[in-house]
Amino acid sequence: MRGLKIAALVAVSLSLAPLAGHAADDKDVIEYREHVMKTLNEQSAALGQILMTAVPGDQTLAHIDALADTAQIALKAFEPKVPGGESKPEVWAKWDDFSKRMKDFAAKNAEMQKIAHTQGTDQALAMVVDALSCKGCHDIYRAEKK
Amino acid sequence: MRGLKIAALVAVSLSLAPLAGHAADDKDVIEYREHVMKTLNEQSAALGQILMTAVPGDQTLAHIDALADTAQIALKAFEPKVPGGESKPEVWAKWDDFSKRMKDFAAKNAEMQKIAHTQGTDQALAMVVDALSCKGCHDIYRAEKK
Repeated sequence: MRGLKIAALVAVSLSLAPLAGHAADDKDVIEYREHVMKTLNEQSAALGQILMTAVPGDQTLAHIDALADTAQIALKAFEPKVPGGESKPEVWAKWDDFSKRMKDFAAKNAEMQKIAHTQGTDQALAMVVDALSCKGCHDIYRAEKK
Repeated sequence: MRGLKIAALVAVSLSLAPLAGHAADDKDVIEYREHVMKTLNEQSAALGQILMTAVPGDQTLAHIDALADTAQIALKAFEPKVPGGESKPEVWAKWDDFSKRMKDFAAKNAEMQKIAHTQGTDQALAMVVDALSCKGCHDIYRAEKK
């Protein structure tokens, strides 16, 4: 369905152009954040499969690229102060700590990407545990819905 | 949990290094493919939210990058002939058609990425309906599990 949905959205988008600057609704903000975090989850899981040699590693560089791209998006996705979904209110109550951690996360994934492109994926993966240390934040800031 | 999981996987990966060339199990192949396709779904949904101005578009370029990276991964993820998950046997029965469509999908997303970086995201999004026309393939090759 995605293609048709996107087509409809483009039509809507063009017709709503004058509204382009309007503030996002809370529901939209949470939904967007979840698309971003689910992407990180899927990509780190795929990379995990490669690390345990469950699947071939010939796409490792593309996964590292996708993670770096998405990590860059993640901090911005949390900027609107909208608790909900799996985000605890602590995200915004302790914003200095949270945003420092997210910037660090994005910086480490950008560094891993740089190493992957300049020295190779094996060298880059030497820092994967540090780059994808999601648990530190999740323990404090995430209320996981099973 | 991801951080600890990755740490454990790296330990396993290093200890299993001599097995690195072994063939992936069917379950692993399907799981990997699903991580890739779910990433495309989350990223195209996020871009859809931007197109309908439900959320701000300041991360549009990063989404386009992530889609191009993941589209490149997708064709490879289907190369092992392992029906299952949401993939119909037709994927491999009609491989010439399927792989042509997937290559076209990856090429269009690479083109959208190129335009985004050279001419800007507005110019790139002019081709988003064509680049993310997922329905054409899904109608033939996907048995969606609700």
